Amino acid sequence: MPILHSLFSILYDPLAILQFSHIITPMFQFQITSKNNRARTGVFTTPHGDLLTPVFAPVGTQATVKTLTPEHLKDINATLVLSNTYHLYLRPGDELVRDMGGLHKFMQWPRPMLTDSGGYQVFSLAQTRKIDDDGVTFKSHIDGSTHRFTPEKSVSIQENLGADIIMAFDECSDPNDHRYSKVAMERTHRWAERCLKAKTRPDQALFGIIQGGVDPDLRAASTKFIASLDTPGIAIGGLSVGETKAEMYAMLDVMQPLYPENKPRYLMGVGTPEDLINGVLRGIDIFDCVLPTRLARHHSAFASNGRLNLMNASFARDESPIDETCDCYTCRTFTRAYLRHLIVAKELLAGTLISIHNLRALIRLMEHIRGYIADGSFESRVPELLAQWQGNAERVGKHKLAQDE
Amino acid sequence: MPILHSLFSILYDPLAILQFSHIITPMFQFQITSKNNRARTGVFTTPHGDLLTPVFAPVGTQATVKTLTPEHLKDINATLVLSNTYHLYLRPGDELVRDMGGLHKFMQWPRPMLTDSGGYQVFSLAQTRKIDDDGVTFKSHIDGSTHRFTPEKSVSIQENLGADIIMAFDECSDPNDHRYSKVAMERTHRWAERCLKAKTRPDQALFGIIQGGVDPDLRAASTKFIASLDTPGIAIGGLSVGETKAEMYAMLDVMQPLYPENKPRYLMGVGTPEDLINGVLRGIDIFDCVLPTRLARHHSAFASNGRLNLMNASFARDESPIDETCDCYTCRTFTRAYLRHLIVAKELLAGTLISIHNLRALIRLMEHIRGYIADGSFESRVPELLAQWQGNAERVGKHKLAQDE
Repeated sequence: MPILHSLFSILYDPLAILQFSHIITPMFQFQITSKNNRARTGVFTTPHGDLLTPVFAPVGTQATVKTLTPEHLKDINATLVLSNTYHLYLRPGDELVRDMGGLHKFMQWPRPMLTDSGGYQVFSLAQTRKIDDDGVTFKSHIDGSTHRFTPEKSVSIQENLGADIIMAFDECSDPNDHRYSKVAMERTHRWAERCLKAKTRPDQALFGIIQGGVDPDLRAASTKFIASLDTPGIAIGGLSVGETKAEMYAMLDVMQPLYPENKPRYLMGVGTPEDLINGVLRGIDIFDCVLPTRLARHHSAFASNGRLNLMNASFARDESPIDETCDCYTCRTFTRAYLRHLIVAKELLAGTLISIHNLRALIRLMEHIRGYIADGSFESRVPELLAQWQGNAERVGKHKLAQDE
Repeated sequence: MPILHSLFSILYDPLAILQFSHIITPMFQFQITSKNNRARTGVFTTPHGDLLTPVFAPVGTQATVKTLTPEHLKDINATLVLSNTYHLYLRPGDELVRDMGGLHKFMQWPRPMLTDSGGYQVFSLAQTRKIDDDGVTFKSHIDGSTHRFTPEKSVSIQENLGADIIMAFDECSDPNDHRYSKVAMERTHRWAERCLKAKTRPDQALFGIIQGGVDPDLRAASTKFIASLDTPGIAIGGLSVGETKAEMYAMLDVMQPLYPENKPRYLMGVGTPEDLINGVLRGIDIFDCVLPTRLARHHSAFASNGRLNLMNASFARDESPIDETCDCYTCRTFTRAYLRHLIVAKELLAGTLISIHNLRALIRLMEHIRGYIADGSFESRVPELLAQWQGNAERVGKHKLAQDE
């Protein structure tokens, strides 16, 4: 149907040939370049460049990774940036972003972007919500105004925003409520089919989202269903939302054998350094999380010997960088003593400098992991990696995070 | 006396030869390179490089120009940066800054720096204060703790901080209180002599400060006295503190013929684009003001057609930069529509991006003025310059500014 539509448009619009060419030459190829048991490296081709996977995506909820310029993000070698559909729909509005040339041009991020579907935020942030089979009616957390998302509306908003990778509208359940998890999963499946049908832009890759709470049978069923859809990638939702780490890893183990081999797998909203290592080990290719930037604004820095609270008085005269092994601008330039001073003096630059470091720490961890997978040493290095990143592992309540970002 | 002291130290400390060499070869030379009636361009040599004057100095009160990295400041061609003695004494403490290698190293600013004496802040910010001929006892605006500044203490703090240009401790009076202005001026003169005597570091240039409110006779007397001191430069205090613009310009006209020709003149805490143009016209070489960064954090941007409040709804879909004629990163990269979105969404990046623009606007204005003085066209261009910068001229209450910065 999209192909037919494009063939027709060419008759009426010479520029449509550009669109059409995307369909003839598939735009979203995923090439696996090396494997180490379940872990793999790959190259995901997008209209804004190739993504080397496994990859960690900084979160830019409101079309900005908080306190950082695009130059900062390029400096730390960020490639994929995530932005939130729910927030941008409410403010400044997806039609405004479209009219300003789309998200890439609006925020001046030239590399690949991803938007979520808004589903998670509607369920976690909106003030009140009424779910039916067709969609969700909710009140804005900003001004209480009433809005309605359907699968079709979510796709339409994401087409206006124009990210390279977009998500099917999904319903995220309480992981421990089996009955609700089943209902939500089934609705998520029906919604994924509707999203796929509603989609019109060939230069965007729509991923379906696996749900199913922490029930192995539901997870397996959902993986099989989402894998059966004609999409260039697979997303995993409903994890890191209150379940234990053991439960999350168990679900990753259940799903892994059922993923299509040649599609990238995106574990949504995850996570800590420990979660990234464990996720890659279980075949995950794409991650995102607000943790690095949110921790930074609360004075907390990733470090290879455990997370540091830089407000601590013990750093007042500490002339070392946050992490001797880090290559980021902050660590190459400033002492812990200076960062602590900025924090105590309530200077906003502290958040910027620690965000640079925290994001670089995770992006660099992924660079190392890609190297280890390529040379075959990743799996044997996992214990060493986990030991190194020990003490950086605590999660932050995800609901709070989503609101904050 | 300082020379004798240095000669003695050489006998005991081989490294003192470095200090001594600063005295043999004067470290702070001021060379006038061109003149256009009272306006002039010059080069002021400091231990951290040459300053081209007239120059505008961004304010980094707490050892950071709010929301900007040193890389941002280099990008906009900032040369001189000011920091506040009162604030750094209270937090993180001048001895800590000294032990961390001094202000340049602490905040990683490799170019010239200037600190004020703390006098103005003690009189405008501290909760209570008791002035006597020896000094001032005051309570911290942060925690109410009691402290005492004397001329000797101010110099000692500024020697610990280690800026290239430091200020004599002064008393700033209500400009309209003639009797108090006279008392404060006379005390400022005695304190300037004590500061000069207390000073020990040869790699710092101490400037005396002219006071005298808006009384022409007091201003003339103060200028003659401060000019008679053996200092490499002259500072002008007690202006832009509540008097009218006409009064300020009248005082600048009174003082100008009495300045020593070959010393740079620093007009403290000034100002708006209009004030900079009028100051240079009246022989001023150095300016500083919190206005560009403070306005930026309140969404207000300098522009050649008048100041813009970027929160204004009219900018929601405006695809032009803040100022088409500006060469800053913000104007080269982002639209007004994006900046307005960041402001409405309460994203801190807005303050960073508008600060870059506002500071670059004043630094670029000074670059243009230096060019006009050099080619002899400055004075004839003043009406055109003032017309161009019209609508950017309103001041902001200085007391509030000092506290805020």
